[in-house]
Amino acid sequence: MVVDSGYRACVVGLGSMGMGAALSCLRAGIPTSGIDLSEARRDQFAAAGAEGVGASIADLEGEFDAILVLVVNAAQARAVLLGEGGAAGRIRAGGVAIVSCTQSAEDAKALAADLEAMGVQMLDAPVSGGAAKAEAGQMTVMASGSKAAFAAAGPLLEAVAGKVYTIGTDIGLGAMVKVIHQLLAGVHIAAGAEAMAMAARAGIPLDTMYDVVTNAAGNSWMFENRMKHVVDGDYTPLSAVDIFVKDLGLVTETGRSLKFPLPLASTAFAMFQSASNMGFGGEDDSAVIKTFSGIDLPKKEG
Amino acid sequence: MVVDSGYRACVVGLGSMGMGAALSCLRAGIPTSGIDLSEARRDQFAAAGAEGVGASIADLEGEFDAILVLVVNAAQARAVLLGEGGAAGRIRAGGVAIVSCTQSAEDAKALAADLEAMGVQMLDAPVSGGAAKAEAGQMTVMASGSKAAFAAAGPLLEAVAGKVYTIGTDIGLGAMVKVIHQLLAGVHIAAGAEAMAMAARAGIPLDTMYDVVTNAAGNSWMFENRMKHVVDGDYTPLSAVDIFVKDLGLVTETGRSLKFPLPLASTAFAMFQSASNMGFGGEDDSAVIKTFSGIDLPKKEG
Repeated sequence: MVVDSGYRACVVGLGSMGMGAALSCLRAGIPTSGIDLSEARRDQFAAAGAEGVGASIADLEGEFDAILVLVVNAAQARAVLLGEGGAAGRIRAGGVAIVSCTQSAEDAKALAADLEAMGVQMLDAPVSGGAAKAEAGQMTVMASGSKAAFAAAGPLLEAVAGKVYTIGTDIGLGAMVKVIHQLLAGVHIAAGAEAMAMAARAGIPLDTMYDVVTNAAGNSWMFENRMKHVVDGDYTPLSAVDIFVKDLGLVTETGRSLKFPLPLASTAFAMFQSASNMGFGGEDDSAVIKTFSGIDLPKKEG
Repeated sequence: MVVDSGYRACVVGLGSMGMGAALSCLRAGIPTSGIDLSEARRDQFAAAGAEGVGASIADLEGEFDAILVLVVNAAQARAVLLGEGGAAGRIRAGGVAIVSCTQSAEDAKALAADLEAMGVQMLDAPVSGGAAKAEAGQMTVMASGSKAAFAAAGPLLEAVAGKVYTIGTDIGLGAMVKVIHQLLAGVHIAAGAEAMAMAARAGIPLDTMYDVVTNAAGNSWMFENRMKHVVDGDYTPLSAVDIFVKDLGLVTETGRSLKFPLPLASTAFAMFQSASNMGFGGEDDSAVIKTFSGIDLPKKEG
């Protein structure tokens, strides 16, 4: 669908998800600008046909109907939108800030309240799916917000998402669903690592173990995606250990605020913290397997 | 393929997996007998065209090329094969006992040694895939044993399995791979329960949570299969809580014998034990979610 109105979009954060979303917007015919601190990423997006690129909103001109914020955490989202020369001031009347970082429901509510005080509406809209789905304009979006916010976000969401879940109207519900989703994602990576470590200890070839599990009822999306890195001995970070230190930290903090026990998430959180403490925080999150001692893991070939 | 030799098979244990396997053998044209303590199951298999059925091997005539043992645990497999009037004595020279229960590598080795003393070879051949795949002759088999044992099991495996993994020649490797597989299966069910319980506590509709996860990177085979039961409020046991008390017990015992820490499996084991201790041992394994207090779960309709 080519949008022939004057709809203008801006994507803040041209990481693996943000770049995919931004390119999907261009493909859908939406004039789209991009903001990132990395010059290489700005150049990449400019070459792809961006309306504009910049290191901050100050480098761009005019107002936007939708600003999609795909940064790492709540603090960055707040800084980008409400900091000095914040991007929120460049959202057109009736436009929307689509906040897609993984954050707590409390942080999402606080941000929405401060945006509302400026007359800007927010969509609480975390995403999942990985870089490949983002690239294809097929992200999964789990969103909450007012009907008006959904309407203002509509053309952009249609461009970037394969599936948009409307969790409800209350800001915070989208964030909560994403936090609970990350509980599963994090536990599944850690469980995959635990199982593969046990296989290594028991003398089972890891490529065989991987084949069996991915063809049986013990499989998970994360096992299939991340344990391949272990089989290949390649810990180049696609998503780093410290991302799950952050996300499982959010999960366990949310559990504490609900006074709700989360035995598996708490255990997996400790495993990722151990991995980070051992110096693997910047490696691929599958490196959580390196917390298990006394096993030989495959080494990268070549 | 129709087997036109005199190959005769017997399946011991006509539960959800065993019945599917036995019917798959008949479909492949293998004259197949079935043993089960339940008259209803024997009648069902007889009506499907069984060569013979019985409550024990004493009710059947002649010798078999392959006896597939699909009972609940190592003790039952040993009793069936080596107990009074045991089935092992009715395996033709050169035939094979295919032992597919989930058991420890130690138990598999001990059983193989005792069978070998009788001149009977064994294939250590646990299975996965669930009742639907068994019914379709598409089980996943993770097997170890001698080339001769694999050859003797060949026609039967071809009938019941979609995929046969040859883990190695040493008895015990198949059992170990299944134990490690069950670590993942059990942790994934418990993690699914923990996530859905947290969603219930946070006011997220469980059907929405289920939809999001099954379309995103937090999905697992077990989440998709078992948390549907939670959404439907239907805890009719397809596989019961006490099966995972047994299987995660095997996992943690194996970890202890390897002196290998299994933080997530140990935590999930405690959750299934709690569920059993609360009186839910006979319910579907998704009832592990009932260990979480203070939440309202969906009730079965009608």
